[in-house]
Amino acid sequence: MIDYRSDNTGRAAPEILDALVRANEGTALGYGADEWTARLQERFADLFETRVRVFPVSTGTAANALSLAAIAPSWGLVFCNPAAHINTSEANAAGFFGGGLKLAPVAGTDGKIDADELSRALAAFPPGQLHRGQPAAINLTQATDLGAVYTLDEVRAVAAVAKARGLKVHMDGARFANAVARLGCTPAELSWRAGVDILSFGATKNGGALCDAIVVFSLEIADGLAIQLRRAGQVWSKMRFASAQLMAYIENGLWLRLAGQSNAAATRIAAGIEGIPGLRRLAPVEANELFLELPPGVMDALEADGFQFYRRSATLARFVCRFDLTDAEADALVASLRRHCALPAKAAE
Amino acid sequence: MIDYRSDNTGRAAPEILDALVRANEGTALGYGADEWTARLQERFADLFETRVRVFPVSTGTAANALSLAAIAPSWGLVFCNPAAHINTSEANAAGFFGGGLKLAPVAGTDGKIDADELSRALAAFPPGQLHRGQPAAINLTQATDLGAVYTLDEVRAVAAVAKARGLKVHMDGARFANAVARLGCTPAELSWRAGVDILSFGATKNGGALCDAIVVFSLEIADGLAIQLRRAGQVWSKMRFASAQLMAYIENGLWLRLAGQSNAAATRIAAGIEGIPGLRRLAPVEANELFLELPPGVMDALEADGFQFYRRSATLARFVCRFDLTDAEADALVASLRRHCALPAKAAE
Amino acid sequence: MIDYRSDNTGRAAPEILDALVRANEGTALGYGADEWTARLQERFADLFETRVRVFPVSTGTAANALSLAAIAPSWGLVFCNPAAHINTSEANAAGFFGGGLKLAPVAGTDGKIDADELSRALAAFPPGQLHRGQPAAINLTQATDLGAVYTLDEVRAVAAVAKARGLKVHMDGARFANAVARLGCTPAELSWRAGVDILSFGATKNGGALCDAIVVFSLEIADGLAIQLRRAGQVWSKMRFASAQLMAYIENGLWLRLAGQSNAAATRIAAGIEGIPGLRRLAPVEANELFLELPPGVMDALEADGFQFYRRSATLARFVCRFDLTDAEADALVASLRRHCALPAKAAE
Amino acid sequence: MIDYRSDNTGRAAPEILDALVRANEGTALGYGADEWTARLQERFADLFETRVRVFPVSTGTAANALSLAAIAPSWGLVFCNPAAHINTSEANAAGFFGGGLKLAPVAGTDGKIDADELSRALAAFPPGQLHRGQPAAINLTQATDLGAVYTLDEVRAVAAVAKARGLKVHMDGARFANAVARLGCTPAELSWRAGVDILSFGATKNGGALCDAIVVFSLEIADGLAIQLRRAGQVWSKMRFASAQLMAYIENGLWLRLAGQSNAAATRIAAGIEGIPGLRRLAPVEANELFLELPPGVMDALEADGFQFYRRSATLARFVCRFDLTDAEADALVASLRRHCALPAKAAE
Repeated sequence: MIDYRSDNTGRAAPEILDALVRANEGTALGYGADEWTARLQERFADLFETRVRVFPVSTGTAANALSLAAIAPSWGLVFCNPAAHINTSEANAAGFFGGGLKLAPVAGTDGKIDADELSRALAAFPPGQLHRGQPAAINLTQATDLGAVYTLDEVRAVAAVAKARGLKVHMDGARFANAVARLGCTPAELSWRAGVDILSFGATKNGGALCDAIVVFSLEIADGLAIQLRRAGQVWSKMRFASAQLMAYIENGLWLRLAGQSNAAATRIAAGIEGIPGLRRLAPVEANELFLELPPGVMDALEADGFQFYRRSATLARFVCRFDLTDAEADALVASLRRHCALPAKAAE
Repeated sequence: MIDYRSDNTGRAAPEILDALVRANEGTALGYGADEWTARLQERFADLFETRVRVFPVSTGTAANALSLAAIAPSWGLVFCNPAAHINTSEANAAGFFGGGLKLAPVAGTDGKIDADELSRALAAFPPGQLHRGQPAAINLTQATDLGAVYTLDEVRAVAAVAKARGLKVHMDGARFANAVARLGCTPAELSWRAGVDILSFGATKNGGALCDAIVVFSLEIADGLAIQLRRAGQVWSKMRFASAQLMAYIENGLWLRLAGQSNAAATRIAAGIEGIPGLRRLAPVEANELFLELPPGVMDALEADGFQFYRRSATLARFVCRFDLTDAEADALVASLRRHCALPAKAAE
Repeated sequence: MIDYRSDNTGRAAPEILDALVRANEGTALGYGADEWTARLQERFADLFETRVRVFPVSTGTAANALSLAAIAPSWGLVFCNPAAHINTSEANAAGFFGGGLKLAPVAGTDGKIDADELSRALAAFPPGQLHRGQPAAINLTQATDLGAVYTLDEVRAVAAVAKARGLKVHMDGARFANAVARLGCTPAELSWRAGVDILSFGATKNGGALCDAIVVFSLEIADGLAIQLRRAGQVWSKMRFASAQLMAYIENGLWLRLAGQSNAAATRIAAGIEGIPGLRRLAPVEANELFLELPPGVMDALEADGFQFYRRSATLARFVCRFDLTDAEADALVASLRRHCALPAKAAE
Repeated sequence: MIDYRSDNTGRAAPEILDALVRANEGTALGYGADEWTARLQERFADLFETRVRVFPVSTGTAANALSLAAIAPSWGLVFCNPAAHINTSEANAAGFFGGGLKLAPVAGTDGKIDADELSRALAAFPPGQLHRGQPAAINLTQATDLGAVYTLDEVRAVAAVAKARGLKVHMDGARFANAVARLGCTPAELSWRAGVDILSFGATKNGGALCDAIVVFSLEIADGLAIQLRRAGQVWSKMRFASAQLMAYIENGLWLRLAGQSNAAATRIAAGIEGIPGLRRLAPVEANELFLELPPGVMDALEADGFQFYRRSATLARFVCRFDLTDAEADALVASLRRHCALPAKAAE
């Protein structure tokens, strides 16, 4: 079996677990008042080239929902792409933590919010309009939920529209590493310098184990968020074991190395399937995911070949590359796709 | 320095981290659909001698608040001891996850709810009374927040009062292991057989690292809770790393061995300080905590001797024993207390 | 000026205010424990030919949101037409009172939910699926937000799909009177006999003044709802003044007489504009609202003629008939529409 | 029967209902965009001698809970007297609308918060302390829930402590009229000039019918509150009928005349019962309520005499005077109390 189901089906990077185990020494104050967590603040400030507050949390859903609740009042509207993870896959955690805030899908290609569409959408909620709530924040998924990556200019354009209306910008960076690796930019360029106020900094999908983080650039919201995290059950008493993981994750560029590997695997597959008849990519392959429209029967055939992946619809399949996916595994998928798409549908069945 | 600040300042048991590291092999479905989590269900069913649903969560606060939200409607009152952790130390997480449910403190000694007091308290909320809400659930902390342990009969008595009114019973078992170890009973006897519907099963304070668990005995609430956990950001995508910890925790009685050690340390100290003039225990020392009223100056003197602990008030100090506290460390505290309490207050300063 | 802006811009029926004033005699227990409210229960039981609980509330938004919160857990999905008032016009009150429940639009014509579309939509949320939440309830607006009326069979078909999945059905009856008057059925036939569990019983838009009501058919949810209403600030201490209004509203068929009048006005206009070139009705005119697509310039011309109405878009206008709209006012609108639509767009500008 | 059960068991002042009926003319925009509501803003600005935003709401519970939610984050603590209405009688509406905010009782006599006790209480929550939440707001009930009235200096002292910590001050003025009438001060002096940020302006208990109001002095919170009111179902579409009531209420000093009448009745009773043996006032009688500790048997005897009132405990009775209570009714209560308290308990039974 070759597993393309998700990047969260994969292993953790050994470096991260090693760090966790090494933190198991002596006593340390609870709830983040330990040395590991203090150092984590410094390391992230270095990484992002500015003062930040970083809060380890157990999941990306917690990171997203608590970030949004921190920047949007309960009567707020959060604009996102219809395919955004917060809209499709988190059981409305944002609405829950946000006290009933509402997600407002806004169109765009490849899982991105389009800045012009956003402008038009915002215009439908003039200030003082009460019946539908008021715009409060923007959510960008980077890399997107369809495997594309916003360019720096695209992020800046969306943020500019948001700022012009006084809205905060949240980036769901479950695959932030993949986006940074792809763009070759700095973390600062892709976040606060582009207008991002708060970032869900993903690690789990990229070789992490049990924690992600919230990185706050708009520091005025950090103290309130700290209490919300406490009451949200997101402040580990033995926080050092989380902070140690996150430090290892960014140490010596590990996070970008891992993301580079999974990106490369996806790129290799994308290149390999170029021109296969009957196969269509739903969006550019710019991170570690491929969304492929396949001819009838091909998904069954792939499964028969031992490939695991998710069916998004009768004809749409998602393939996710883990950091430790091998070239051989990538090539095997290419070969299988090539073989089955070449056949008439009937034969494939 | 000898650290008596908390059991969460301590290390994790190596067995637990070993298990976490061993789980880092191959791929596994996310969000709890993995083999580790499936086995966890079986192991906990064995441990509790009945069908249960067990949900790993990141913290005790998450376990408590989500448990209460699962058994109480948002207009419900949850009765607890005034010293209960949910009332004093969780930033009203129960009120938050519970949609505005309210904690109703009810008196009792040693951090326990007294069954008769509970009866009286409930009588003040006759059915149909709307202005103050309606009773919905009972919260017991076992071991209590003052270091005592409910006997089986005490738990049963409280549960009987609750059941007579149709209320569910939640046990905050952040130190459930210490209580079971103390009582020498089975986990089943101290939980569902005594009337407990849902249990916060603590591990962190007893040698765990990054997870506790919710154990559901009233299975009709489990499916709803599963979704609430998802939207609460409490379902790790790489759940195997949490489930593996919890399995190691209960494997071969590790949890009870660790709790026995910290209990024994507290007992050793309690025995050693017996009869020291001017020193008063706030409650019986039945688990791994000592709450001591001390003469003026003694707390300063202890700190000068290198002991770390929490001051609960000007005269009340809390000492918590970790599973790896040594006899020598226990004896050192006894000696220090004996020495400083014997002196006139002045000298001690 | 002739006002077609809304049915809530209109006067109250004098009978209703008379009843309110007549209730101002003697003392009466507060919070609904008065005789007026007791009698209201009986009258509504008669009206609906079954045991009900009826709760006066101040607004339709309160009625809708609290009804949905009563039948859906906070992790629930409530399926509604995209044009549903709860989705477009209540500032996400349902999400707020529902603790973060989410509205899930499902397609259908004329503002209705289509039973087959609902089946398909539900199939996308198989039991056990956690990431998107679980279906919990259905919301029907009757009459619909586009001025159409569900037939009895259409309501039954939607309810059947709901029941097959174990979902509760809420009817937003802000214009329930208009629907009953249109269909010529009994209130029972259009509510619980068709599968409705809880009804927002509107009065304000149909000659009421300051209250609507929630009518509960599934009595097991009524006690919890009573407390929710109390904490929602929806239980007037001088409830008699609300109950008296509602009794007058249904006394001697007043509610159906008023609805018949506003329906008739809309029908008269609809008949009058039949065949006007360039004018298109968005949906059948079956209650008291007309949604008309108009040629460019016509809306300006109508306003110049002294008509007030809402522009839903550059080409879509909404006209709402009040119970006291006169035939002359209706005919004036017809004449104006006929005149301006006949002209070339240019001239109309 | 003579009714002392509550001031909400009473009639509405005819002037208020007259105004409501007079508002029933012509059409008017919905949701507060009408002329009555516009004028209401002006009148209240005059009344309070400053710019305000005034929002009619259906109940005092709505006014209180939404006011607190507007000035406290969901993780906030709201300090109040243990006897405060928000703590004892509103089904935790504050916790519900406030997203899980928590009430923190602080001691004081006669139902008041004592400024020094408040200082001490706040000191227990140093900034940065997370486990118990952070102080956010203060709630004063004026007149208090025990029938006393804060002096201007007492309000100022509490507000000064609050402001020193950066906390907002909410006044629950369900009986604000009684307090103003008692103190002979201006509404401005007792509200914003004394440090109040937001006021629940009660009318119902003082001759109103179906609405109270929120008066906002800290205007920066008004826009958010406006949306919250909308989603809370507290914005009547036919708002003119509420605004007209409130205008009549303050017109020509009606509100103070009514409050003066009920205050005078209570004062008359208090004077009449002076020196009756075995009878003890729980607090000074400064508004329209008397809380009396009575000898055994007296409550039964009063009821046998035809008096209606509430038993707060086996020995504590509450008597509330309505604006239309007559001197004869007041004197009858005095006579009855005098007669029954004079008798030995036995005879009284």
